[in-house]
Amino acid sequence: MLLPLKLRRRNMTGSHIIIPQPSLDKLQNLIRADIAKVDEVIIASIDSGVPLISQLARHIISAGGKRLRPALTLLAAKLLGYSGDRHVKLAACVEFIHTATLLHDDVVDESALRRGNATANEVWGNKASVLVGDFLFSRSFELMVADGSLEVLKILSSASAVIAQGEVMQLTTANNLATNISSYTEVITAKTAALFAAACEIGAVVAGQPERQEVLRKIGNDLGIAFQIMDDALDYFAEQSKLGKEIGDDFREGKITLPIILAFERSDDFEKDFWRRTLEEQNFAEGDFEQALQIIAKYDAIKDSVAIARDYSDSARMAILTFPDSQERAAMLEIVDFCIERGY
Amino acid sequence: MLLPLKLRRRNMTGSHIIIPQPSLDKLQNLIRADIAKVDEVIIASIDSGVPLISQLARHIISAGGKRLRPALTLLAAKLLGYSGDRHVKLAACVEFIHTATLLHDDVVDESALRRGNATANEVWGNKASVLVGDFLFSRSFELMVADGSLEVLKILSSASAVIAQGEVMQLTTANNLATNISSYTEVITAKTAALFAAACEIGAVVAGQPERQEVLRKIGNDLGIAFQIMDDALDYFAEQSKLGKEIGDDFREGKITLPIILAFERSDDFEKDFWRRTLEEQNFAEGDFEQALQIIAKYDAIKDSVAIARDYSDSARMAILTFPDSQERAAMLEIVDFCIERGY
Repeated sequence: MLLPLKLRRRNMTGSHIIIPQPSLDKLQNLIRADIAKVDEVIIASIDSGVPLISQLARHIISAGGKRLRPALTLLAAKLLGYSGDRHVKLAACVEFIHTATLLHDDVVDESALRRGNATANEVWGNKASVLVGDFLFSRSFELMVADGSLEVLKILSSASAVIAQGEVMQLTTANNLATNISSYTEVITAKTAALFAAACEIGAVVAGQPERQEVLRKIGNDLGIAFQIMDDALDYFAEQSKLGKEIGDDFREGKITLPIILAFERSDDFEKDFWRRTLEEQNFAEGDFEQALQIIAKYDAIKDSVAIARDYSDSARMAILTFPDSQERAAMLEIVDFCIERGY
Repeated sequence: MLLPLKLRRRNMTGSHIIIPQPSLDKLQNLIRADIAKVDEVIIASIDSGVPLISQLARHIISAGGKRLRPALTLLAAKLLGYSGDRHVKLAACVEFIHTATLLHDDVVDESALRRGNATANEVWGNKASVLVGDFLFSRSFELMVADGSLEVLKILSSASAVIAQGEVMQLTTANNLATNISSYTEVITAKTAALFAAACEIGAVVAGQPERQEVLRKIGNDLGIAFQIMDDALDYFAEQSKLGKEIGDDFREGKITLPIILAFERSDDFEKDFWRRTLEEQNFAEGDFEQALQIIAKYDAIKDSVAIARDYSDSARMAILTFPDSQERAAMLEIVDFCIERGY
C-alpha cells in the first residue's frame, strides 16, 4: 500500500519529493515582538558572571528552535485577551525548563559513550551540561518567584517533576521490545506533553481566567503528544537537513518509539529476530537501518504513527476552535499544523 | 613544626592516634523526632510510581549522612521559638536540594571516565543520576509551593542557582594552579555555604521573624565555609573509614583546594614542578600522593587550612552566642564543633 503523498518524502529508493515546508508566518508576525522580549529576558537571566554558564547557555539557546513552548504561553494568554507583560517572563521560564531538559537529555550515559552526537556535552563535557541545566532550571524558578504566582509555580514545578519521571521511564523502555503503545504514550505524555500542557495552562493563569486552565492544559497535552509522535516518526523518514539530527539515531540507540512498536507487533518471527538483534542486543550490521525502514514501510508503521498523531492534533484543533475567531486562534492552529507537517 | 595534637591523625609514617569522635548527641536527642518526620516526608515524596526513581533516591538518601542541612532548618526555627510543623517539610526540601546536588556532582565527565568511585552513577549510569536529581529538585519545589511561602521559594531557588554557579566555577578552577584563596573561597561559598545559609535563613522565615533572617543566614554561611574547608582538608589526612571516600581523590582529580593553594604558594621551584605535573597535567607516578602529603606537611598547609576554617566557625559560634541560652543554641554550637572536628 502506498504511503500518503506527504509521507513519500523518503521512499525506499532514496528519491525525494519536494513539498513546501509548513509555515509559522501568522504566528511569527503576531508574536515576533513578544518573542524578542522573551529572548531579552533569557539573555539577561543567563548573564551570571560565570563565563562558562553564559557560553554554554547561549550555545544551546541560540542554537535553537522555534520557541514553540514559550509561543504557546504567549498565545494562550493573548487568546484570552491578556494585555499585560507577565506572560513574557513566564514564557522565558518555560523555555528555560525546556533548555535545561535538553541539556540533561544530552548527557551521555557511561555505558553508551560511543554514540557521539555533536551536543553541548561533547563540547563542554557532561558535568558542565548538567550544571548549566541546573542553573537554568533554578533561574526559571527565580523568575517565577519574582512573578509571584504560586499557581504558576505549582504548575511548572509539577511539570518539571513529571518530565523527570517521563525521562526515567524512557530509560527503562529503551532496548525493551515489550514496550507497548500504552507505556510509550505514558512516557511521551510525561517527558514532552507535560511542558506543552503547562505552557498553555499558565497562559490562562496570567490572563486571570482559571476556568480556562483545564481546556488550555488539554490543548497543550494533545499537541505535545502529537508533536512527540511526529518527532519519533521523523527519525525514520525525515531529510537529515530538516531534522537537525541524524536520521536513524533512535534506531541505533534502541529507542522503542511508535513506528517500532507498530512494526514489531506486525512482524513475522524472522523480522522479530531482526528487531531483537538490533534494538535489544544492539548488535548491528551494515544495512540494518535500511532493513528497518523496509519492515516499517511494509507494515505501514509510519503511516499509522502519523494517523495516531493526527488524532491528537485533531483533538487539540477542535478544542482551539471552541474559542472565538481571532489572530491568536489562527496562530495556535498554525502551531498544530506545524507539529504535524514539519520535517517533511 | 608539629601539627596540633588533633591534626596528627595521619602522620608521615602512617601511624594513627586514636581520638574520640566529635559528638552530635545533644542535637540527636533534641531533634530526633523531627528528623524522623523529615525522613517520612522524604520517603513519601520519592514514591513516584517509577521504580527506578524510588530505588535510586532511596539509595542515596538512606546512604546517608547526618542530615546536617535539614537539622539547621529545624534548629534555626526552634531557636526562634517556632512550635508549628512547617519546618519539617522545608527541612525535607533542603535535603532534597542537597541530594540532587550530590547526584549531579557524581556524574562522570566524558573526559574523566577512569576515576571510578562507587557512586550512584556507577550503579545506574549517568543519565539516571541526572534525571533522578532533577526529579528530587522538582519535588523540592513542589513541597515549597505546597508550603506556600514565596519568601522561602525565593531563598531556595536563589540558593540553587548559586550552587550551580559554584559548581561550574569549580570546573574552571580544576587543574588550574592559578586558583587563589579568593577564588577558592568564592567557589565554596557558592557550592556549599549557600545551602547552609539558606537552610538557616528559612528557619527564621517559618518562625515569622524576618529581622533574624540576616544573622541566621550569616551563621549558615560561615558554618558552610568552615565545613567545606574541613572537607577539603580531610582529603589529605582523614582515615579512609571515617571519610566515606578514598583519601587522595581530590589530589588525583586535580582539585585545587585550600591545602593545595597554601602548599603551592609556599613551594620551591622543584616542588612547583611536582604540583604542575600532577595536578595540572594529571601525569602521575607511584608515590606521588605521599610526596604531596610531605610537601603539604612541610609547609603546614593542613594546619593553616584548619586555622582558616576555625576563623569561620568561630564567627558562626559568636553569632550563635548572641541568642539566649537554650537547648537549641547548644545543639547549634555542637554542629559548629562537629564541622571542625569530624573525621579526625
